[in-house]
Amino acid sequence: MLRTNTCGELTRNDLGKEVTLCGWVQKSRDLGGTTFIDVRDRYGITQLVFNDETDAAVRNQARDLGREFVIKVSGKVIERSNKNPKIPTGEIEIAVTALEILNQSKVPPFLIEDETDGGEELRAKYRYLDLRRNPIRNNLVLRHKMAQEVRKYLDGLDFIEVETPVLIKSTPEGARDFVVPSRMNAGEFYALPQSPQTFKQLLMVSGFDRYFQIVKCFRDEDLRADRQPEFTQIDCEMSFITQEDILNVFEGMVRTLFKNVKGIDLVEVPRMTYADAMRLYGSDKPDTRFGMQFAELTDLVKGKNFPVFHQAELVVGINAKNCASYTRKQLDELTYFIKRPQIGATGLIYLRYNTDGTLKSSVDKFYNEEDLKQWATAFDAEPGDLMLLLAGKKDKVRKQLNELRLEMGSRLGLRDKNTFSPLWVLDFPLLEWDEETERYHAMHHPFTSPKPEDIALLETDPGEVRANAYDMVINGTEIGGGSIRIHDKNLQALMFKHLGFSQEEAQKQFGFLMDAFEFGAPPHGGIAFGFDRLCSIFAGLDSIRDVIAFPKNNSGRDVMIDSPSTIDEKQLNELKIKTTA
Amino acid sequence: MLRTNTCGELTRNDLGKEVTLCGWVQKSRDLGGTTFIDVRDRYGITQLVFNDETDAAVRNQARDLGREFVIKVSGKVIERSNKNPKIPTGEIEIAVTALEILNQSKVPPFLIEDETDGGEELRAKYRYLDLRRNPIRNNLVLRHKMAQEVRKYLDGLDFIEVETPVLIKSTPEGARDFVVPSRMNAGEFYALPQSPQTFKQLLMVSGFDRYFQIVKCFRDEDLRADRQPEFTQIDCEMSFITQEDILNVFEGMVRTLFKNVKGIDLVEVPRMTYADAMRLYGSDKPDTRFGMQFAELTDLVKGKNFPVFHQAELVVGINAKNCASYTRKQLDELTYFIKRPQIGATGLIYLRYNTDGTLKSSVDKFYNEEDLKQWATAFDAEPGDLMLLLAGKKDKVRKQLNELRLEMGSRLGLRDKNTFSPLWVLDFPLLEWDEETERYHAMHHPFTSPKPEDIALLETDPGEVRANAYDMVINGTEIGGGSIRIHDKNLQALMFKHLGFSQEEAQKQFGFLMDAFEFGAPPHGGIAFGFDRLCSIFAGLDSIRDVIAFPKNNSGRDVMIDSPSTIDEKQLNELKIKTTA
Repeated sequence: MLRTNTCGELTRNDLGKEVTLCGWVQKSRDLGGTTFIDVRDRYGITQLVFNDETDAAVRNQARDLGREFVIKVSGKVIERSNKNPKIPTGEIEIAVTALEILNQSKVPPFLIEDETDGGEELRAKYRYLDLRRNPIRNNLVLRHKMAQEVRKYLDGLDFIEVETPVLIKSTPEGARDFVVPSRMNAGEFYALPQSPQTFKQLLMVSGFDRYFQIVKCFRDEDLRADRQPEFTQIDCEMSFITQEDILNVFEGMVRTLFKNVKGIDLVEVPRMTYADAMRLYGSDKPDTRFGMQFAELTDLVKGKNFPVFHQAELVVGINAKNCASYTRKQLDELTYFIKRPQIGATGLIYLRYNTDGTLKSSVDKFYNEEDLKQWATAFDAEPGDLMLLLAGKKDKVRKQLNELRLEMGSRLGLRDKNTFSPLWVLDFPLLEWDEETERYHAMHHPFTSPKPEDIALLETDPGEVRANAYDMVINGTEIGGGSIRIHDKNLQALMFKHLGFSQEEAQKQFGFLMDAFEFGAPPHGGIAFGFDRLCSIFAGLDSIRDVIAFPKNNSGRDVMIDSPSTIDEKQLNELKIKTTA
Repeated sequence: MLRTNTCGELTRNDLGKEVTLCGWVQKSRDLGGTTFIDVRDRYGITQLVFNDETDAAVRNQARDLGREFVIKVSGKVIERSNKNPKIPTGEIEIAVTALEILNQSKVPPFLIEDETDGGEELRAKYRYLDLRRNPIRNNLVLRHKMAQEVRKYLDGLDFIEVETPVLIKSTPEGARDFVVPSRMNAGEFYALPQSPQTFKQLLMVSGFDRYFQIVKCFRDEDLRADRQPEFTQIDCEMSFITQEDILNVFEGMVRTLFKNVKGIDLVEVPRMTYADAMRLYGSDKPDTRFGMQFAELTDLVKGKNFPVFHQAELVVGINAKNCASYTRKQLDELTYFIKRPQIGATGLIYLRYNTDGTLKSSVDKFYNEEDLKQWATAFDAEPGDLMLLLAGKKDKVRKQLNELRLEMGSRLGLRDKNTFSPLWVLDFPLLEWDEETERYHAMHHPFTSPKPEDIALLETDPGEVRANAYDMVINGTEIGGGSIRIHDKNLQALMFKHLGFSQEEAQKQFGFLMDAFEFGAPPHGGIAFGFDRLCSIFAGLDSIRDVIAFPKNNSGRDVMIDSPSTIDEKQLNELKIKTTA
């Protein structure tokens, strides 16, 4: 090795040692004829000192070093007069006897420090320099650790990691597939997998029993904030199990990650049905770091001449503890917030429970003190609380109130990034109605098993059928989801019928998997975790972008390498394709 | 779980226990009113017994079971009368009290046993059934173990696994790139990486210091026997190191794999220069499981009126120990072998050293006893040996003799799949002459560092410049290769000049990497191992296909899912491309 030590490990214990370090010049300063240089590598920072006792030629070399020059220095570890208790090497410095410039550097376009002056676009273009900064590098180190821990945990439970193919087949409904023209089979295309779903089910048919894979998946869709065209899943499947087994195994995985990566002992993960999550939080991924559950007042508020409430399918609200003192302006902000087009509520009703015990609402002309007392009771409110109510169509108003609840949680500082509140959401609906095509679609995918006790409802009330499907949610973000699959071909045929597939269509789209199921498919089920998202939650980040070494921007572009790009005519000809753009 | 135990774990120690197993019916036989069924899962096989003591309904159920039915059985572990010492569960059987058919199976198209009657094509179509067979499943279990061990080893040495992007950029010379049309950026294309070379070098620029990744790579080329369009690499890069450090770290990795996966203590890996490998074996990936090194007789055989030898640039041969007794027919076979068009030798000269001490060659009319004695000495031959000689242009004749040597090794049983002979081949040429374009090409890639002492030769004798490049070879197969990279921009510019790149071309093709190198690139180097190939060697297989769960055939097709395939007009329109096939 060119070095004897890294820049992060020398301490008092090494005093007097002759060492050689390599790294980048972080900063350099002259103080009364002495030059101090901080040299940085992946492991830390060490201070170098050049003073009267240093060879003159070496001192001159040192003075010419620029930021981000790559250097190799040899010298003796000595005690530092001006100690820095913030870093592990803060008690020592190196009295340099030899310095070699391994490479020069142009002045970087932004500061390579924890807090940088570089804008997002500039840092994206010079991603390789942004990756030098501690916060970004630490995210990738964290990601590495998490992947190692996942593999250790699953390997310990006899799971086998199997690589499934990346060049697969486009499906007729694969509207979001990336496709890959084949040169050897001109006119034909591979597709990149949106998930290895089919292959992991085939592996269960093959008897693999416990499969996992940390695997890249691809989706060519408009990139809403914080999606990437390529993303990574922890993809898992098990045979001869029940839903309970899957919940236990993967709750164990998440708990192990928290314990081994963050040193956090997670409580047992609570469970909630989809129906309850919608009723109590208006969301299938509630942020349970804070309470503020919904209270429904529909019956209570009817018949009092307030038409908005009287006609509403649902009147529902939240109790913001200790917010009775909210000003008119603050209430107006909240009203403005929920009336924004992306939320679309028509109005906000409030009820203050003043600290003096009086009640004051925005609908005082319709409701008397006694009515409002009943509301407060329904909200379990105490003096000092502020109740916020919305009314309207059930599904819509729940979604709106969910947004308001999250906003209030943020305003009240109840959404701390260092608090982790995981939750299993269970019993998702099997089907969801699609207004556009006017038919039911599988909410998860067409192989998801209905709950046995609900199968009869498929004929009479398909929207009410619950699935053996589950999501894991942390802090209001879905980090994983899966289901028990259908392994019985008669039930599968029934499902296809209700999804409006003809025998022929089903065969065309899912043919080889259906064929495989004829040869002894075991009962099986699985789950997939969004690994990027999981890492970002562990890193306390809002975006997945900084847990990805080389992410793409919102237009799906890698601005560092300038991709995608046009390709040669010759290449197009060989592939026998033409662009019509 | 649906089961209490797997089918591979019950032994005498479990006698009397009530257990529940799940698995596939491997086979079933009736012996004098008793029905025996072997039930199989990933972990093993357990015998079930149904006899007079079994409930009549359960016995009837058992009689109706077909091969590959999926069943769940409960019963008591009892001692077996007819023990099978070959399997861990061979001393027990299950007296079944309850049987549930979890799924039926059609009769599989081939036998699901270690030796199957299915042809290659049929098994490829029903790959999910072929994967049920022990030998195939064991390969994938081995692959999983190897990946785990690689990660453990590298993680232990502070390497970080970083995922690099799959959707990257096509390069002007990327003739073998798979490309991916972008919907969001119509008319533009991503490319799939042939390797993460650029990104791992950028990670070094970023200071990551020790990077690895087990990663899918892609190459769209005519698939010679045993290549796959998608393949897996163990990709690695280190900073602040010398070639010696890389050799040590990765020799350690391979030794650890052999030790922990196969229980084999490998000797220290010998090292050989490229020049010696070519001289002694005629190959840069010699199979060193056996000796039979080349002996050069060029000077010794000149001037004796045998024009073939007299005019030859090189006369070179091997000594096949104890083969003096080879018959005329055997010698004719060897002659035929080396004259085949793919080898293309013009003739084979032999010299027998008979056990009685006499010498007999196919060129006796040109060489006397004394001449032949000298040959035998040059070959270090003993009575009983057979020497085989070829003559011609140096490079060509060495390649031919390499083929003959390997053939003789096979004939003599010297290439045992359970013997492992690794080798480092060092000091590869930096450049190779390309007849077609009449210019030098980088043998490895244009960032490969020349040996410092050879840099001056770049001007005078470019073909003689050696690189800091190395391959690891096991049993005649290259399993890994890499190099120390150029990190100095002046040397890089010199390289591009000698490769015939204009400044502009170099910038266009390697622009952002060259830009990155301006900001303080550390000295670095790396290596990549072909993981499929490494697994196949560990599994003792000739082909990589059976260490891949879902491989493609020689036409790049996955016959199971029937991919690649045509795609919808609608999809093509959205991508703004047309096929012209």
